[in-house]
Amino acid sequence: MVWSVPETNKVEPVRVRALAFDVFGTVVDWRSTVIREAEALGRAKGLQVDWTAFAEAWRDGYHPAMDRVRQGELPWKSIDELNRMNLDALLERFRVEGFSESEKEDFNRVWHRLDPWPDSVAGLRRLKAKFTLTTLSNGNVGLLVNMAKHAGLPWDLVLSSELIGHYKPDREVYLKAAELLGLAPGEVMMVAAHKYDLRAAAEAGLRTAFVARPMEWPNRRVDLSYEDAFDVNASDFLDLAAQLGA
Amino acid sequence: MVWSVPETNKVEPVRVRALAFDVFGTVVDWRSTVIREAEALGRAKGLQVDWTAFAEAWRDGYHPAMDRVRQGELPWKSIDELNRMNLDALLERFRVEGFSESEKEDFNRVWHRLDPWPDSVAGLRRLKAKFTLTTLSNGNVGLLVNMAKHAGLPWDLVLSSELIGHYKPDREVYLKAAELLGLAPGEVMMVAAHKYDLRAAAEAGLRTAFVARPMEWPNRRVDLSYEDAFDVNASDFLDLAAQLGA
Repeated sequence: MVWSVPETNKVEPVRVRALAFDVFGTVVDWRSTVIREAEALGRAKGLQVDWTAFAEAWRDGYHPAMDRVRQGELPWKSIDELNRMNLDALLERFRVEGFSESEKEDFNRVWHRLDPWPDSVAGLRRLKAKFTLTTLSNGNVGLLVNMAKHAGLPWDLVLSSELIGHYKPDREVYLKAAELLGLAPGEVMMVAAHKYDLRAAAEAGLRTAFVARPMEWPNRRVDLSYEDAFDVNASDFLDLAAQLGA
Repeated sequence: MVWSVPETNKVEPVRVRALAFDVFGTVVDWRSTVIREAEALGRAKGLQVDWTAFAEAWRDGYHPAMDRVRQGELPWKSIDELNRMNLDALLERFRVEGFSESEKEDFNRVWHRLDPWPDSVAGLRRLKAKFTLTTLSNGNVGLLVNMAKHAGLPWDLVLSSELIGHYKPDREVYLKAAELLGLAPGEVMMVAAHKYDLRAAAEAGLRTAFVARPMEWPNRRVDLSYEDAFDVNASDFLDLAAQLGA
């Protein structure tokens, strides 16, 4: 696929070689999976909890926790560790009692068992024939690998903030991913459902593909509009594959 | 697969979750591929060179170059860079002239295009159903990814010395690989055709599988003997899969 280059950078058109995927919300449906497992756990324990609110609050704690690491307030912690920190706080806030340590650990690993969006696996398989496919996620390596085995996600490699020592949207993450792939930033296209991630990727010189995921936050007002600033705007991974000729 | 634990470490038997593969010589047949491409290049250029000797000398330069990095004599250099450094010296030593810069760069990337041993892809596919499969190679990430795309190697992830900042057999490489996978060292089995690699892995607490590759150095005396010190000794990856119940 040959992309035209922005006016400000009139060199040769750049061929995209690799697609770098945001994962939570873009590839996998964290919300449904967390709610489903939490409800099953709640039933088994005889608890009355609003597990939808619990799941959304758990996810809401993700960015503030990473920001504390990004700003140096916390030393490096993996997403497993940040999720666990937030889980412990939420169990208290929602007055959930009676979970053993091993039950908490297992529940925290629900993030390793997230289900893909219905189009994800088929779309990635098509894209894999034409591009190198990597994760570029704030999730730690072990989490992303377990998730890929669970969900059948056919990554060529697993790149993670953990390997780079910075969380997205730090610029270093995007630049280092391209460097590790042996590619120029413009040969890598970031694929994400979140515009802040794409804007930071574009700022670092990567190409961008926005994929709308209206079911990530079905009860919230989220910006799902297509924008010319992105190289591609797609409704799902099959649409993305079609647009990229894969 | 449950492994008995050595006498010296009487804890629970450990279940192997992930296999970590040495790549050059263990998964791919660097020698045949480099000789074939070099001979074709030599014919095209009308050169008379002993390309078998050239290929073997190129590979022989690999360990001394890495050792200079390991001992701090050179700053971190990727295998692409070390291969290029050695290539330039060999072109001079074998009095090969008339290669343009882009021809040298392309020839250096022959290491990205190595062919697998005949059993590698089928064996890995079987093993992938039961285990997480990672590279654990001194090759840089971009090289390993390009090779996997070329050869159809179905890795779950690509771990490399480049991500860890140490070359094998430094202990850090083995320990960090397990940590990144979220596993205990004893849950990871190193698979290699080279005993120094397996011994260093065992020293770090990993399980070990020796795979004999007599055709890596067909004209040299290489230690291909099976040893009880390794958890598994196998004739190829199909034999390895059979022994691991995959």
